[in-house]
Amino acid sequence: MTAVHRLLPSREATDLLELTRDLARGELAGRAAADEAADRFPRDVFGLLGETGLLGLPYPAEHGGGEQPYEVYLQVLEELGRAWMTVAVGLSVHTMSCFPLAEFGTDQQRAEHLPDLLGGRLLGGYALSEAHAGSDAAALSTRAVTDGDDYLVTGNKAWITHGGVADFYTLMARTSDDGPKGISCLLVDASTAGLSAGPPERKMGLTGSPTTPLHFDRARVPGRNLIGERGDGLRIALTALASGRLGIAACAVGLAQAALDEAVQYARTREQFGRPIIGFQGVEFLLADMAAAVHSARATYLDAARRRDAGIEFANQAAVAKLVATDAAMKVTTDAVQVLGGAGYTRDFPVERYLREAKVLQIFEGTNQIQRMLIARHLTAN
Amino acid sequence: MTAVHRLLPSREATDLLELTRDLARGELAGRAAADEAADRFPRDVFGLLGETGLLGLPYPAEHGGGEQPYEVYLQVLEELGRAWMTVAVGLSVHTMSCFPLAEFGTDQQRAEHLPDLLGGRLLGGYALSEAHAGSDAAALSTRAVTDGDDYLVTGNKAWITHGGVADFYTLMARTSDDGPKGISCLLVDASTAGLSAGPPERKMGLTGSPTTPLHFDRARVPGRNLIGERGDGLRIALTALASGRLGIAACAVGLAQAALDEAVQYARTREQFGRPIIGFQGVEFLLADMAAAVHSARATYLDAARRRDAGIEFANQAAVAKLVATDAAMKVTTDAVQVLGGAGYTRDFPVERYLREAKVLQIFEGTNQIQRMLIARHLTAN
Amino acid sequence: MTAVHRLLPSREATDLLELTRDLARGELAGRAAADEAADRFPRDVFGLLGETGLLGLPYPAEHGGGEQPYEVYLQVLEELGRAWMTVAVGLSVHTMSCFPLAEFGTDQQRAEHLPDLLGGRLLGGYALSEAHAGSDAAALSTRAVTDGDDYLVTGNKAWITHGGVADFYTLMARTSDDGPKGISCLLVDASTAGLSAGPPERKMGLTGSPTTPLHFDRARVPGRNLIGERGDGLRIALTALASGRLGIAACAVGLAQAALDEAVQYARTREQFGRPIIGFQGVEFLLADMAAAVHSARATYLDAARRRDAGIEFANQAAVAKLVATDAAMKVTTDAVQVLGGAGYTRDFPVERYLREAKVLQIFEGTNQIQRMLIARHLTAN
Amino acid sequence: MTAVHRLLPSREATDLLELTRDLARGELAGRAAADEAADRFPRDVFGLLGETGLLGLPYPAEHGGGEQPYEVYLQVLEELGRAWMTVAVGLSVHTMSCFPLAEFGTDQQRAEHLPDLLGGRLLGGYALSEAHAGSDAAALSTRAVTDGDDYLVTGNKAWITHGGVADFYTLMARTSDDGPKGISCLLVDASTAGLSAGPPERKMGLTGSPTTPLHFDRARVPGRNLIGERGDGLRIALTALASGRLGIAACAVGLAQAALDEAVQYARTREQFGRPIIGFQGVEFLLADMAAAVHSARATYLDAARRRDAGIEFANQAAVAKLVATDAAMKVTTDAVQVLGGAGYTRDFPVERYLREAKVLQIFEGTNQIQRMLIARHLTAN
Repeated sequence: MTAVHRLLPSREATDLLELTRDLARGELAGRAAADEAADRFPRDVFGLLGETGLLGLPYPAEHGGGEQPYEVYLQVLEELGRAWMTVAVGLSVHTMSCFPLAEFGTDQQRAEHLPDLLGGRLLGGYALSEAHAGSDAAALSTRAVTDGDDYLVTGNKAWITHGGVADFYTLMARTSDDGPKGISCLLVDASTAGLSAGPPERKMGLTGSPTTPLHFDRARVPGRNLIGERGDGLRIALTALASGRLGIAACAVGLAQAALDEAVQYARTREQFGRPIIGFQGVEFLLADMAAAVHSARATYLDAARRRDAGIEFANQAAVAKLVATDAAMKVTTDAVQVLGGAGYTRDFPVERYLREAKVLQIFEGTNQIQRMLIARHLTAN
Repeated sequence: MTAVHRLLPSREATDLLELTRDLARGELAGRAAADEAADRFPRDVFGLLGETGLLGLPYPAEHGGGEQPYEVYLQVLEELGRAWMTVAVGLSVHTMSCFPLAEFGTDQQRAEHLPDLLGGRLLGGYALSEAHAGSDAAALSTRAVTDGDDYLVTGNKAWITHGGVADFYTLMARTSDDGPKGISCLLVDASTAGLSAGPPERKMGLTGSPTTPLHFDRARVPGRNLIGERGDGLRIALTALASGRLGIAACAVGLAQAALDEAVQYARTREQFGRPIIGFQGVEFLLADMAAAVHSARATYLDAARRRDAGIEFANQAAVAKLVATDAAMKVTTDAVQVLGGAGYTRDFPVERYLREAKVLQIFEGTNQIQRMLIARHLTAN
Repeated sequence: MTAVHRLLPSREATDLLELTRDLARGELAGRAAADEAADRFPRDVFGLLGETGLLGLPYPAEHGGGEQPYEVYLQVLEELGRAWMTVAVGLSVHTMSCFPLAEFGTDQQRAEHLPDLLGGRLLGGYALSEAHAGSDAAALSTRAVTDGDDYLVTGNKAWITHGGVADFYTLMARTSDDGPKGISCLLVDASTAGLSAGPPERKMGLTGSPTTPLHFDRARVPGRNLIGERGDGLRIALTALASGRLGIAACAVGLAQAALDEAVQYARTREQFGRPIIGFQGVEFLLADMAAAVHSARATYLDAARRRDAGIEFANQAAVAKLVATDAAMKVTTDAVQVLGGAGYTRDFPVERYLREAKVLQIFEGTNQIQRMLIARHLTAN
Repeated sequence: MTAVHRLLPSREATDLLELTRDLARGELAGRAAADEAADRFPRDVFGLLGETGLLGLPYPAEHGGGEQPYEVYLQVLEELGRAWMTVAVGLSVHTMSCFPLAEFGTDQQRAEHLPDLLGGRLLGGYALSEAHAGSDAAALSTRAVTDGDDYLVTGNKAWITHGGVADFYTLMARTSDDGPKGISCLLVDASTAGLSAGPPERKMGLTGSPTTPLHFDRARVPGRNLIGERGDGLRIALTALASGRLGIAACAVGLAQAALDEAVQYARTREQFGRPIIGFQGVEFLLADMAAAVHSARATYLDAARRRDAGIEFANQAAVAKLVATDAAMKVTTDAVQVLGGAGYTRDFPVERYLREAKVLQIFEGTNQIQRMLIARHLTAN
């Protein structure tokens, strides 16, 4: 694993990246293939990330966070994605699950929940999507009905990352019929009676990371677990998604970098017609285009992250970063298999897995079609 | 499964296509997913193809063939590929394995072997590639040494489709050190002592079709099984590959058509924002580009096939067809997963399998990099 | 100019192609650059095409046509396009202008007009588009009002190829307010009082071919010049366009072939780092992809043409052919400039002109966005 | 011209960008089309840039420079490129021509020449390329032979931007036969006897910016005009090119942004089927992809610039930025013409000019094939 030369804003950031690479090399890289082949979720790794301080990087230190800019947090995510996608996506989703609480929660809510979430004791899931409200969040139908001081939640969520393994879910549910303004955000303990996870989806890749439906049948959620104002759930969800997209973009760059690393490594050693295939311009130019895509995608998410860190508008850039980085990951992983040829098509090398993992990045947290809609809307608005 | 409107040269061809669609619908489509998931090779299907007369379409009637032009044979292959890739690729490989015998064999050799091969009793494999001679066929090192009237074959072949399940192999082995002119073609019974198949490769897709190494350890092959002249093996192999490439192109178009069918079907029924997603131009244009790629790839292989049928030069067009059709299949299957979104990423729909199957088409029987070399050589030569 | 190896259906077709190549080489290739640079329309060439019998290839012999299948006519068009785009596009437009008369005219109308049109004495234009009804033909507003036995036509047409140089126009005008059913087709003599052509558009390329608006101010057209039924104009226009699209596809392939020829020629002689640049795989693979695009686009339009010739549905294939061939022409001409590098960017070589000419092919006779709509509509309908 | 929201490092930078936009709007945008159509070089604009302080942004204040980081200089270049490519490319070339002097010159040389160069009195050209040493700089054959304290220069340079209008040239000439180590860098006054410029190339675009050969016939250059060490010329040239590439990348982003602006503007007002075409997802997604390409290319050059500003390795990122940004410009300008349709193909709108200007960006200062070689070399080396 060659070092990616990064331009980092602080000595602390340099140390964090170094720490991440050590952990990725020491604890993750060796296990990924086997756990993915066995559909095994590495729950323990998230504990380890918590202990190491990597689980709450972008959040305030007072609740156990790392108080790092997104520019740094995302590069940590990228390095994790380079080693094991299930872990990087898991961290990104967990971070997004914490976002409403951290950003819109009361001081009391934060003090009560954040330390456990950022320390690794609890793992989060983000319960927004429904079978008939995938890209169209405003159409969601899971309901939270007031019952005394509590809410009773009924309905079905779909495509929930960490479904069945998370300790809590950040849930968006309908609290009134007022369309997009009738949605509220609730923090739900996974052990709540009436809440159950369905069987995991049998996915093409990212098989170590369970994705399930969630069924709510009059699941009782205390009113004090309402995050933000009642009716403010969609705005909260969309805000969380904008940052979450940056996470996925960083994961995608990590995956693409890993595929590029493998392809370069193979092309330097594999010989055809009497010399390493990297010496053939046909392979060389393909690798150069892959490298250009990786660099460019990384620069794109970093640009969006620096805007976020500077407190200026970044949602449009985040949509661009998600689109560009995940398309790059799909292209680069596909071409990496091609560089390895027959070998790349087997499970003896990780690139076929990378390709399978790349595809979902173009689909979840807003398909790339949705990103295009967001970008176009921005063009029209300005 | 919508009907593809085909321009066919005869009533017989129309009947053959109809027969193929019935068989595909009745016997193949229903089993494909389960057999692929279980890594189960459908040996029985090839018997059935033989009985139905679909196993020897481009070969002479006097030995049990169908005496059909490639234009027709390839469209049959395409329809099979639409239903089950393992079967279509298997038929294409089997046809290529029969090619040297049918084209370069003596009357006696043909009379002895072809009827069983074309009737479905025997299944063929094509043993050319070696671990260090993938794209570079002239570098192969498996040796066939004269021993009385026989050859003793020693060496290792790699990436052999039907390895371990074929009944015979069409083998290219070195009979002298005279570089590309030192290779000969032998028909080898799979039960020959000293010949064994290694464990199947653990592939990304096409898991129903075993791909294995073959190990030859002084395996005795009767001298009468030499096909063509001694030293003529590479020329025979390359001639077979030119036709074989058309087979892969047709398989690729079948796979792409299947993916397009699924995507259209889904887009017509899946609703978002209150209407079928096919009504959104973003999806509609994606489907149109997929359809254009399928049509264009089909026209490309048919053009090459018609040249072959007319007895004029077609090798360059075959390389183009292989390149264009397999790139189209990769693109179309990838986009089909995108159209289905999260659903497409699961094994509940076949498109994720199609994507995994498509990748190998860009790699085997000459990677698409090799096709580009062939096409460029043609440009330079003319 | 290397020969393209074509699969032709008859000896006559072979002769026609040979004749076309001779004429292209002898009369067109040498003049194209200078006439295009001077914005000079080669009216005389169309007389020559008429004399040679190339102006009415797909039309009946009894009126002076060549009675050739589209498969042959289009390959003639392709060869002309390879030598001079203005001539090929002109022939395609002229052929389309004759189409309504030849297909929907009465015997008397055909006998009266076709011989002059097919013989080269008269040149045609096709007057459908309007400034506010580009892709949306049904919205057109030019009106033809009955006045005794005549029509008085008033309104403005836009983007008319051969505007100001044509001898007659095949006009679509509104004869009632009945939406798409209120349009009729009229044959209009260019010298009609009240009809005038505006100044030619100052175009990026195809500068030898004038494109102008047409202004109708109570222009009197005899009632006997109505083609087909009153109200049938849009159906006639769309039928003509389906065949016209095949013409543009063939022109595009000719242009792409010309660009490929130049690039190969240059790459064989231009040296860098001590050897011809065609010896570098980076260039070689680029040329191979260009060649594959040319072959594939040609096969695509031929497939559509053969369907048309066989009397089966071809409109969808024609839309695919227009889309694929013109996108290929844009890509191939752009890459040809790249192969020639700085030289390609100058007017010392024709490739920069080819690129400028290619762009309009993606735009006129239905933009490629419109083709995608047509293809998608076909997917939805089946 | 909508404002691009930029993340700038200082208040001074914000002011500079504002100043640039004002100047671009006030002095450039209105003249560009007419001057380009007339092949007229806007020499006066460079005087204006000098007076305004925009001509020496990345150079030291003590010699009249702006002492700005590349991050800022390049965004100024981008804004100029958005208004007029000939000016932006001219500034980029001028800056590169000053680079060897500013970076490798003695204090005395800098004090003597830089103020006039940065103040706008003198315009520079960069004389490296030769007809047979385009991409292969080491092969150059123009010779500088010692004659007393002077050099006598003989030979021909090719493709020189500002040829015939520059006041001085930064020349790379061979001072010994020691291959790449036999090249030296000389500052040459354009009025030197024996130095003449050939006729301008007749280019596809960027017609306002003259590109000519330079002929040296025993042109006498004082020995004190040697920049850096004798034999150090190639290293100096390659160092200058690495920074120069960033300039071209920024120009490309400016051009692409201009094309995007035009396309969005047109799509918002042009109606088809009764509504603005931006309301059709087919157009909307195309615009979104264009916007994503612009954002991503900008982020890519900024990332490289920030590395340069931080004093770390950036040559590989510069090659990536040149490749990505110029490919983006070609794609975006081509698609902008498509969005405008027929209108875009005419000189009534600037997008056809943008397309013609974009093509050269992929070719000069190292073709994109050369960039791929550089990027691949970096992959192999690490």
